Amino acid sequence: MQITPFDDTYFMQKAIAEAELAYERGEIPVGVVVVINNRIIARGHNLTETLNDVTAHAEMQAITAAANFLGGKYLKDCTMYVTLEPCQMCAGALYWSQLSRLVFAAEDPQRGYRAMGGKLHPKTKVSHGTMETEASGLLKRFFIEKRNLK
Amino acid sequence: MQITPFDDTYFMQKAIAEAELAYERGEIPVGVVVVINNRIIARGHNLTETLNDVTAHAEMQAITAAANFLGGKYLKDCTMYVTLEPCQMCAGALYWSQLSRLVFAAEDPQRGYRAMGGKLHPKTKVSHGTMETEASGLLKRFFIEKRNLK
Repeated sequence: MQITPFDDTYFMQKAIAEAELAYERGEIPVGVVVVINNRIIARGHNLTETLNDVTAHAEMQAITAAANFLGGKYLKDCTMYVTLEPCQMCAGALYWSQLSRLVFAAEDPQRGYRAMGGKLHPKTKVSHGTMETEASGLLKRFFIEKRNLK
Repeated sequence: MQITPFDDTYFMQKAIAEAELAYERGEIPVGVVVVINNRIIARGHNLTETLNDVTAHAEMQAITAAANFLGGKYLKDCTMYVTLEPCQMCAGALYWSQLSRLVFAAEDPQRGYRAMGGKLHPKTKVSHGTMETEASGLLKRFFIEKRNLK
């Protein structure tokens, strides 16, 4: 068996580990990592409830952290791995960042940027579906538990 | 002459004062205030260059600050006054905040949320044009000066 340590699945697993941290905090479990040259330069998970802040999506925090690491505001040559399709806010932020590549796991047919009419930057290549089952399984488990607690 | 201290023009002047602070810092001059019951609970101006952060738009900072003031993440009964039409990122954040009312001064036919296909929350009432001349005059002056410095 060939070992491919730095493929999309590897990095999406790291994003799912972040989503699990959100889950443990009672947050909608979405996680993200930003990668440049096979190196993770930013991680984040959804903190909207903890911070009482609708802008505290995983992606927004990771964009700020990655830019901070790079010392510039553009995420050129960076790939973002995120467990759920970004919303229009996050897509808008990614548009401004000129991110090179976006990989998301689960689709969001209600609030995802594609359904809401949002746009990524023309430079941003997009793929999705990597570890979709794991990412959407975590989200489903969260919402079932939440419903049962009411 | 009748004095109407708390009308849209009054609060948009406060937003323009914020835009002027951005201008003085060499930032694209956009300013914002958030108002509830005729009281300003958050102010902000664009800081993307200063902070090296594409997410540091005036509106994003003001949403976070207003939620912090209110102790909750929804901007119910709040009006946001902003000197330029929000981009899709900021519209997306305002969507999540369920802002009651948005007033913007100048339109942004290139990068405004309407051109980019973004959506505000169905609860958000929108009006625009208040002090448009002043707000767009400041933006034009900024870009002319910027061009001449190159």
